[in-house]
Amino acid sequence: MEELLYWLGLAAVGVSALTGALDAGRKQMDIVGLIMVGLATALGGGTVRDILLDRRPFWLADELNLVVAMSTAALCFVVARRWRLPPRLFLIPDAIGLALFTVVGTQIALQYSTSWLAASLLGVTTGVVGGVLRDVLCNEVPLLFMRGELYATAAWIGALTLLALQALGVSPVLAAWVAMGVIIALRGLAVIYKIRVPIFREKGG
Amino acid sequence: MEELLYWLGLAAVGVSALTGALDAGRKQMDIVGLIMVGLATALGGGTVRDILLDRRPFWLADELNLVVAMSTAALCFVVARRWRLPPRLFLIPDAIGLALFTVVGTQIALQYSTSWLAASLLGVTTGVVGGVLRDVLCNEVPLLFMRGELYATAAWIGALTLLALQALGVSPVLAAWVAMGVIIALRGLAVIYKIRVPIFREKGG
Amino acid sequence: MEELLYWLGLAAVGVSALTGALDAGRKQMDIVGLIMVGLATALGGGTVRDILLDRRPFWLADELNLVVAMSTAALCFVVARRWRLPPRLFLIPDAIGLALFTVVGTQIALQYSTSWLAASLLGVTTGVVGGVLRDVLCNEVPLLFMRGELYATAAWIGALTLLALQALGVSPVLAAWVAMGVIIALRGLAVIYKIRVPIFREKGG
Repeated sequence: MEELLYWLGLAAVGVSALTGALDAGRKQMDIVGLIMVGLATALGGGTVRDILLDRRPFWLADELNLVVAMSTAALCFVVARRWRLPPRLFLIPDAIGLALFTVVGTQIALQYSTSWLAASLLGVTTGVVGGVLRDVLCNEVPLLFMRGELYATAAWIGALTLLALQALGVSPVLAAWVAMGVIIALRGLAVIYKIRVPIFREKGG
Repeated sequence: MEELLYWLGLAAVGVSALTGALDAGRKQMDIVGLIMVGLATALGGGTVRDILLDRRPFWLADELNLVVAMSTAALCFVVARRWRLPPRLFLIPDAIGLALFTVVGTQIALQYSTSWLAASLLGVTTGVVGGVLRDVLCNEVPLLFMRGELYATAAWIGALTLLALQALGVSPVLAAWVAMGVIIALRGLAVIYKIRVPIFREKGG
Repeated sequence: MEELLYWLGLAAVGVSALTGALDAGRKQMDIVGLIMVGLATALGGGTVRDILLDRRPFWLADELNLVVAMSTAALCFVVARRWRLPPRLFLIPDAIGLALFTVVGTQIALQYSTSWLAASLLGVTTGVVGGVLRDVLCNEVPLLFMRGELYATAAWIGALTLLALQALGVSPVLAAWVAMGVIIALRGLAVIYKIRVPIFREKGG
């Protein structure tokens, strides 16, 4: 499980750096800006989680994360200057990054003797903060706050699924894969069907 | 005093979650968004203080805070869907939250061998950060930065009052109540009379 | 070297508080707002660095920093109400603050057994965060994200210069002065000639 978490975390860093670099590229940022947005997207969520848990940030503890994030962003700069990608494609690595980070974040939080409630919220934090930073740095409305996107909702349901399956005795590895599938499926359904959760009041003050 | 601080902190979490949920509700956020804004408002200021003091965030150390914040926000969702509240009513729990958090934050900072100056600034931080997060997440200009609101000013004068009274030998419990009264009174006067403090230059460059 | 770092850090706090106060003054903030923006500009970058390195924030460890930041901002309020300064003058203390903070931040990160890559990034963080906070609080587009400003680029090249010179055996003190010179020179050239670094794609999606 430890090893799986490690590789999932590294994969999450890569796909998140990719989404950050793609977004920064669309905004015509230069290469330094693009690398910075890539780093913020890839490392932001885990850094907030680590600071809340009073851990050394994961990318200072294991700098391979830093190298993966920077080289993905730099590669993206070189490759994507040639090919033009449809913008919606960007939602696929974004959903994968959300799923991976949420599961990894929840698992790491559990190791620090937090309750299931706190662990699930720290998992959601790990999952969403990078994307919020990316959207703010690229001057877009964060996906997190767009109605019908089910962004935090998908992450939270995934984190709770992970915790429930483990409590029922399912192996952590299987639980992790199921939870990631739940998050990606919910995000996919939300993007395709624009699902809505109940709101406070249709006509606000 | 310890016990008073504990209950004041919990009360501050509750009223702040209420203001966050009310604000998110007015912006027609769904229930997940509403709970997230409630959590950020209720826990943001104390979390920043705890990270600066290198303490475990208070809501991870005592998860009752988390439960209070979430259930207040959820209750607010259920109740306020029925009744319509005048928006200005929202300023009352906001002022109470500011007063409680500032006093609790200043006292906690003092326990970590900070000077009176740093303690008062950490108190102000505890008081204002939650409200700033709420206003930013709800896409409003933070009350903190609106002229004539005396937001940070009220908190700072309250924190300094607390420290001065304690230095003069007044019991910490009495000093805390007086300081909270000062903050609420100043905010009330500012809202009613739009008091202004001296500004840099009437006609800016 | 230790002593040089200390004084450079204190100087960086002073000039950054100055830029924050000038900017807040131009936006007609009152004295409390002006001091808050000055504090955020002067202390923001180093605080983020210290939290990432799990150090006590430098202004809680040595409160002289707090006193310098607050008194500079307060002095600026008194002095600048009388004299009117051309807005572009503001770019000079800003460049000095960027250079000083980047060099100090990189050196401090090195003491915490980070790699050269992480140290340079923490140096850039120390250099740029204060200015970003200032610009956000004053509701301006951060200089960091304006094309042709070479803001983060200048800081990063400076940090890498510092590390390269030290690796080549140059004395840390000399390397620090050269690196600061590089940063200030690059910022000066960028402001005068609006230099651009390669961008992702001239015509974005």
